[in-house]
Amino acid sequence: MIIVMKHNATTGEISAVVSQIETFGYRTHLSQGTERTIIGVVGDDRPLENHQFELLAGVEKVVRILQPFKLAGRDFHPENTIVQVRGIPIGGPQIVVIAGPCAVESRSQILETAQAVKEAGATILRGGAYKPRTSPYSFQGLGEDGLELLAEARELTGLPIITEVMSPEAVPTVGRYTDIFQIGARNMQNYALLQAVGKTHTPVFLKRGMMNTVQEWLMSAEYVLSGGNYQVMLCERGIRTFETATRNTLDINAIPLLKQWTHLPVFADPSHGTGKWELVAPTARACIAAGADGLIIEVHPHPEQALSDGAQSLKPERFTELMADLRRLAPAIGRVL
Amino acid sequence: MIIVMKHNATTGEISAVVSQIETFGYRTHLSQGTERTIIGVVGDDRPLENHQFELLAGVEKVVRILQPFKLAGRDFHPENTIVQVRGIPIGGPQIVVIAGPCAVESRSQILETAQAVKEAGATILRGGAYKPRTSPYSFQGLGEDGLELLAEARELTGLPIITEVMSPEAVPTVGRYTDIFQIGARNMQNYALLQAVGKTHTPVFLKRGMMNTVQEWLMSAEYVLSGGNYQVMLCERGIRTFETATRNTLDINAIPLLKQWTHLPVFADPSHGTGKWELVAPTARACIAAGADGLIIEVHPHPEQALSDGAQSLKPERFTELMADLRRLAPAIGRVL
Amino acid sequence: MIIVMKHNATTGEISAVVSQIETFGYRTHLSQGTERTIIGVVGDDRPLENHQFELLAGVEKVVRILQPFKLAGRDFHPENTIVQVRGIPIGGPQIVVIAGPCAVESRSQILETAQAVKEAGATILRGGAYKPRTSPYSFQGLGEDGLELLAEARELTGLPIITEVMSPEAVPTVGRYTDIFQIGARNMQNYALLQAVGKTHTPVFLKRGMMNTVQEWLMSAEYVLSGGNYQVMLCERGIRTFETATRNTLDINAIPLLKQWTHLPVFADPSHGTGKWELVAPTARACIAAGADGLIIEVHPHPEQALSDGAQSLKPERFTELMADLRRLAPAIGRVL
Amino acid sequence: MIIVMKHNATTGEISAVVSQIETFGYRTHLSQGTERTIIGVVGDDRPLENHQFELLAGVEKVVRILQPFKLAGRDFHPENTIVQVRGIPIGGPQIVVIAGPCAVESRSQILETAQAVKEAGATILRGGAYKPRTSPYSFQGLGEDGLELLAEARELTGLPIITEVMSPEAVPTVGRYTDIFQIGARNMQNYALLQAVGKTHTPVFLKRGMMNTVQEWLMSAEYVLSGGNYQVMLCERGIRTFETATRNTLDINAIPLLKQWTHLPVFADPSHGTGKWELVAPTARACIAAGADGLIIEVHPHPEQALSDGAQSLKPERFTELMADLRRLAPAIGRVL
Repeated sequence: MIIVMKHNATTGEISAVVSQIETFGYRTHLSQGTERTIIGVVGDDRPLENHQFELLAGVEKVVRILQPFKLAGRDFHPENTIVQVRGIPIGGPQIVVIAGPCAVESRSQILETAQAVKEAGATILRGGAYKPRTSPYSFQGLGEDGLELLAEARELTGLPIITEVMSPEAVPTVGRYTDIFQIGARNMQNYALLQAVGKTHTPVFLKRGMMNTVQEWLMSAEYVLSGGNYQVMLCERGIRTFETATRNTLDINAIPLLKQWTHLPVFADPSHGTGKWELVAPTARACIAAGADGLIIEVHPHPEQALSDGAQSLKPERFTELMADLRRLAPAIGRVL
Repeated sequence: MIIVMKHNATTGEISAVVSQIETFGYRTHLSQGTERTIIGVVGDDRPLENHQFELLAGVEKVVRILQPFKLAGRDFHPENTIVQVRGIPIGGPQIVVIAGPCAVESRSQILETAQAVKEAGATILRGGAYKPRTSPYSFQGLGEDGLELLAEARELTGLPIITEVMSPEAVPTVGRYTDIFQIGARNMQNYALLQAVGKTHTPVFLKRGMMNTVQEWLMSAEYVLSGGNYQVMLCERGIRTFETATRNTLDINAIPLLKQWTHLPVFADPSHGTGKWELVAPTARACIAAGADGLIIEVHPHPEQALSDGAQSLKPERFTELMADLRRLAPAIGRVL
Repeated sequence: MIIVMKHNATTGEISAVVSQIETFGYRTHLSQGTERTIIGVVGDDRPLENHQFELLAGVEKVVRILQPFKLAGRDFHPENTIVQVRGIPIGGPQIVVIAGPCAVESRSQILETAQAVKEAGATILRGGAYKPRTSPYSFQGLGEDGLELLAEARELTGLPIITEVMSPEAVPTVGRYTDIFQIGARNMQNYALLQAVGKTHTPVFLKRGMMNTVQEWLMSAEYVLSGGNYQVMLCERGIRTFETATRNTLDINAIPLLKQWTHLPVFADPSHGTGKWELVAPTARACIAAGADGLIIEVHPHPEQALSDGAQSLKPERFTELMADLRRLAPAIGRVL
Repeated sequence: MIIVMKHNATTGEISAVVSQIETFGYRTHLSQGTERTIIGVVGDDRPLENHQFELLAGVEKVVRILQPFKLAGRDFHPENTIVQVRGIPIGGPQIVVIAGPCAVESRSQILETAQAVKEAGATILRGGAYKPRTSPYSFQGLGEDGLELLAEARELTGLPIITEVMSPEAVPTVGRYTDIFQIGARNMQNYALLQAVGKTHTPVFLKRGMMNTVQEWLMSAEYVLSGGNYQVMLCERGIRTFETATRNTLDINAIPLLKQWTHLPVFADPSHGTGKWELVAPTARACIAAGADGLIIEVHPHPEQALSDGAQSLKPERFTELMADLRRLAPAIGRVL
């Protein structure tokens, strides 16, 4: 933490800032520039708040030097984390593809889709039982019946399952069925929920909030990690920007940036990232080419009849084509599929 | 809902769309343009999903005509809703000012602040007992002890209290103390929480998510209203944009826009909207001049010692000055304070 | 400028950075933290580029301490600049209202509007002769004929005129007619144009780019100021955000922020800032309450027949009402109108 | 164009809108819904302005149905445009890589870089002679001397050259040297400039403005096309969002979206799109995997000494590695390099 004094700060004001820092048990380092005096705080100053200094007389601004996350960062954990899900290693050379419908809608729908994505080569099955919907009048999911159907689909296909959990009190119920907890974009900063899944031993798939920075996202991962659950995966799913031609703007930059900053596995969701099925295959290829460890793709046997997200769902035959694309692509970038 | 067909859509494709619409029980209206054919759906088509048509052959896009909210809109409820909180009418000619610290930190802090804001003319006391923090290492609030202290401050000053509730299971506890449930920006689309407060009879103060459109915000209000709780207030608190010189960008346009679209009372939060105490007074005046029914302002006796949001908190003497400003302003725009 | 070294930077890497800084003629200041070493550059380092250090081995990042603008800032010019336009002081206690049509469309239109806004109390007449339009098929302005008509309107009413200049080669022509050069939002970073008007003695009205930060905006002002033209006014006209319910998001925070950072007069444009005439009056009041020195408002006698920006133009009678509102407001915030 | 009437619009108001439409020479189509009446305009209504109807009594909003561009769209030009630059076809199966320094800084720098990028396999040489810089105190380019050096580098290597033109009056000078006019992001809506290059026969490389939608971008292309110059290429170079960890957010979605909407060749600029050299190679691969027809990459022999954009420039050896990556990638996605 660096405290920048105002142009006309007095010696007394500078001394007062130094004293305040020392009160908190830190040492200081003074640097007298030609236009500004700068005071450095020596030590792990993550516990300090900017405003504890910004509001002192003569202070112009406070600049943070350290990244706020520790457990999620590579500084103290340089090697990649490999998350294990029923024997599938995630975060290693192998590309992992999660596929399935947005929502579990019926027994035939989920079983049919599960078999189709398995045949196409997917390794994990997705399906929502509890759906966060913008409108209270939209389909809200089948609830625990949906979880039962997912478990049956796992039984049938051998694919592990991932499904969303939306509130702390639902963690035990969802946890009885799922292999991976999905935390949706709207809940990326639902701290009560992050703390609840942080106390379990089930892997967590943390989607980026649509208006959250990569730094904030890693701080949300830090909530889970600091609770004792180290099995965390991150999933870029598009951010909200001024562009309205697509549902979201898939932040392709975030993929290699995360691989630099964190040891956690990085996924991408081109279905939500674009919102249009015609754009899913090209952006899915792009995410893999950019270094993503895996993808999550919405697949529905009859998208035009889907109860949610139909516009961005692939039909099974198109998903099969995409898997073929990815199989050609993987060796060209040194990955296995 | 309008379905726009592609340039080269065939008669068969057009008929198929018409049949699909009729399957759902709606009538259609066909309009043959020079470049495009357009199919209108006749009836309240809010239950339909865009993708049920977008994915049919020959369809270019689907355009929504109706606003998706009903209970929150003025179409069927033209007159203003007046929320009553312990005898204080909110949403009428009187400007309501909510003030207090970001978080309840100690007995002396909250009691001292409560008396100061009461003397300055505030009508409701704010204070957080449960705090949503970006970092798991930051102060998370005093919990139920904080609620007890808020109740004591109400006892002392006679000011009604507002405090944040962060999860559905906390609703009964928080509800035993508070006069108003605050739903924070990060929880604007926490639907489990919205449903939980929608089942109570306690007024709800719904802050805008920093990433959410006005339309989505009114849909979140619709969750509460459709649960049976009609005592909903909206609070603009700044949105996230590319500008980093301020913490958020206070969306001043949203204030008169909401007054057009909805009958619910509209507040503004210039503390979060700017993130800098020096900007709070001018933007607070601006929000009132734009037609806000009230303000929520962070006040702390010693901002530099605050455990959160110190940089945007006013000292009591500055809050007193702001109240004087607002008293001069109110009659000039036809309001009472 | 502060250079933050990586966690594991070697002594050799640190020395190399220090040498590089000294090569450019600056002194350094070393601060050894527990996790990071920080190197401060002593002196006015505005001419240095970040990447000259970011790319050296062992460097994590470069943090700027000084604001990049000098002439536009209050550090060396604390008192307000008062721009004089034909005897009208701009930037003092008096609120200045510029009004008129988006574009000059015909002799009768501009003369009628000029008289109407004068009667309502406007002090300067606006009108575009060259119009930047998104579509090449839209009305592009009357060109020099429009300038002639503006001059005739000035003759008739005594109001000074402001009009947009869009390219360096048009500066002499437009300069022969106008009292103030308007630089439009799309040209805020048209540096050839900024340099051209910087060489004249005509006041410059610099609108904020819809995609530009306040800092970048002041750097564009710096282009004009460093050319020798000190008569610069700034105009907030809304920025582009994810919200689509309004044409732009008027950044109300920018008004008091600019009054802190710069000595130049600050205007606001609620017509472009909202894009909807119903929102113009409330946001215009808000801008004045936030401390703006003036407003620019689009007024058209028949908005539904306007060749551009009709949706955000006030009819003369509504503009007259707004002026009455502002006259009530001005004394309540210590201004004169 | 669809005109949506208000809930309570009267028959008189509806008739008035119909008459107004007919005044402009269009036919109408009326659709009576349960909550709203909708009036469709029949014919190519691109010349009409929304506000000509929005402001009529009883109108709620106007919805556009047709894309505003014609010449740039695939409706009337379904097959891909192939731009020819000195015998190099752009927009066909072959991937075209443009490389070189941000700015021409010296004879040795541009000649050394030109030879290096040629050896690595680049097909076109880039280099700025006129530089748009945020600060008036930064290096502004060598001007015509830079153009001379570029021509010499072309002579030496046989690579065609591309360089930026910043104002209409510079078009003849730059045009004497360059093979392709680059229009920079800040000038995407500099209409005087677009008109000037639209009158030439030199291919135009139009970068996306950092805050412009894909639709606006195609309208800027339409300016050039409607001037008679059909040799237009588009280049995605990142948009401005709330994320500050990277310089811009490369909009990967825009690449396949453009391939759907337009017949013009599509490039990507991962140097500006990320602002960090470490992210250039992975995002460059991603853009090609998403379907881009080519890339433009900043390469500098000594990035830490570059006068601009050093942080995002690749050293020649890293560019050579990237070209090797792309050669492995191309066949996996059905392209040639």
